Amino acid sequence: MVAVEENPESFFAAAPPLRDADAVAARLREFVARNSSAEGGRRIVCVTSGGTTVPLEQRCVRYIDNFSSGHRGAASTEYFLKAGYAVIFLHRRGSCQPYCRFLPDDSFLKFFDVDAQSKVQVAECHAPVVKKAIGDYCKAIEGGSLLKLPFTTIFEYLQLLNMVATSISLVGLRGMFYLAAAVSDFYVPWDSMAKHKIQSGGGPLDMRLSQVPKMLSMLRNQWAPLAFCVSFKLETDSDILIQKAHMALNKYKMNIVVANLLATYKEEVIIVTNKERSIIRKMNKDEDLEKQMIKILSQNHSKYICGSTNGCKSPD
Amino acid sequence: MVAVEENPESFFAAAPPLRDADAVAARLREFVARNSSAEGGRRIVCVTSGGTTVPLEQRCVRYIDNFSSGHRGAASTEYFLKAGYAVIFLHRRGSCQPYCRFLPDDSFLKFFDVDAQSKVQVAECHAPVVKKAIGDYCKAIEGGSLLKLPFTTIFEYLQLLNMVATSISLVGLRGMFYLAAAVSDFYVPWDSMAKHKIQSGGGPLDMRLSQVPKMLSMLRNQWAPLAFCVSFKLETDSDILIQKAHMALNKYKMNIVVANLLATYKEEVIIVTNKERSIIRKMNKDEDLEKQMIKILSQNHSKYICGSTNGCKSPD
Repeated sequence: MVAVEENPESFFAAAPPLRDADAVAARLREFVARNSSAEGGRRIVCVTSGGTTVPLEQRCVRYIDNFSSGHRGAASTEYFLKAGYAVIFLHRRGSCQPYCRFLPDDSFLKFFDVDAQSKVQVAECHAPVVKKAIGDYCKAIEGGSLLKLPFTTIFEYLQLLNMVATSISLVGLRGMFYLAAAVSDFYVPWDSMAKHKIQSGGGPLDMRLSQVPKMLSMLRNQWAPLAFCVSFKLETDSDILIQKAHMALNKYKMNIVVANLLATYKEEVIIVTNKERSIIRKMNKDEDLEKQMIKILSQNHSKYICGSTNGCKSPD
Repeated sequence: MVAVEENPESFFAAAPPLRDADAVAARLREFVARNSSAEGGRRIVCVTSGGTTVPLEQRCVRYIDNFSSGHRGAASTEYFLKAGYAVIFLHRRGSCQPYCRFLPDDSFLKFFDVDAQSKVQVAECHAPVVKKAIGDYCKAIEGGSLLKLPFTTIFEYLQLLNMVATSISLVGLRGMFYLAAAVSDFYVPWDSMAKHKIQSGGGPLDMRLSQVPKMLSMLRNQWAPLAFCVSFKLETDSDILIQKAHMALNKYKMNIVVANLLATYKEEVIIVTNKERSIIRKMNKDEDLEKQMIKILSQNHSKYICGSTNGCKSPD
């Protein structure tokens, strides 16, 4: 396999084209236009969620994947909607969905039963939580403030992110990116990929993976330069976490980096800006960490809009 | 990274130990004892389903995965239960589950609504299919003929398969293996695996993957020598499919190999034995291919039991 340069243009040029790109673009245009012209001009956030895959074969049987349940993205989407944002939920197919976080895979078998009149009923003990979920979901969908876009591969993800960013750029400062997806760092360029399933039996398999070009720079500098950008840093080694978060802040000019460790990411995150660092901890086991996170991010986004706008007193 | 020999013993010795191994062993013993002493002595099949993962880091963020929805294993489990088998469903966590095949990820949001009395109701149009699914599932669970065991990594899968095989060996000829899981061919031995998340930024990533030792030989020769064994061969290249199926028949002494192509596996499979080859095609879009498959396999299993038993006339 041949290593390619880490060049966004050549990455996009060589990627397999997105299916239904025109239809997706139309849905995005409609969504952004409608929400930005809603009363007061709604803020719009793109929440990315779940891991991207890297196919190892063109007719794909094997792929490299990044661990991510999508729980954080799904939970955050619920709190962004509650805070009045319109949300573009750019998520891995099959990952955790908003309002479905507490459900097992075969949820409907476990939550429902058939009564004597052979009517399907939600089991008594699960009724309140199921009712609330269905109600909240219907409200979000009817309100037109949630758009779900699925991806699987790194190729789909980056092409979709580009399209979403181009749409969100139209609302300027009111746009936000909340980049919680676990995006592959390494990939096999489509051109140099095995066409058929790699055969076993010939001893060990040697692979050379190229680096995925860092698209945060493109997002910040070209795609949506005015948007408020929040990226995530997940590490397993606490010694390098904060240092890596600061590198991302400076190199990609993020507004905020949310730093977390694999071992504790459900209980604790660190919100890192150029000026300060604050730890958010789960207060009790029934409260979502995302509730506090989205509150702080939303406040920071308000300051950002205010601080960048003439006639609005800067909070600093 | 250092390549290790393809040796089952060294694979197991180096694998991270299975969590809850004792509890799983106890559940298996109870399941097999109860079903084998049921009226007439139930046949017991182990259906493996979904893809295994290969972690690339010990504190795993990245892993190699095999494409498999688990749809075939889930559907086959339903038909084996219908045919009177007890089923050990050894499946990838999060893959398709029996009786849930037609459901979207957020099924309960799409299938149910809250009525004026704020009772949760199944939407009228979905009622028959949901009712049937819940009914069939409850019957299988209450009948005690379905045991679900989940896995994620190749390490978990092979250790569990070993335990299941040891249990099923107790029913001799009445045991069956239906190996539909997409098992990794290559892996990184635990000892030589990166401890922390592999860092990007240092150019391309070179990886050397070792071959997973072929456990079919162990299964056939040592773990459950009398069981009826059905393995699967999935290829993307039709030119090598049948040849690879015959290699598996001979090398691993499988009773049947089910051969399929990635492009058509939902519409067509080829049942390959040492004596014959028969193509099974989907007759109409509403009928599961697995219905015909399980019928043929069950008949072949009957012949196998008969042919190996004194006092039962051999069908040949």
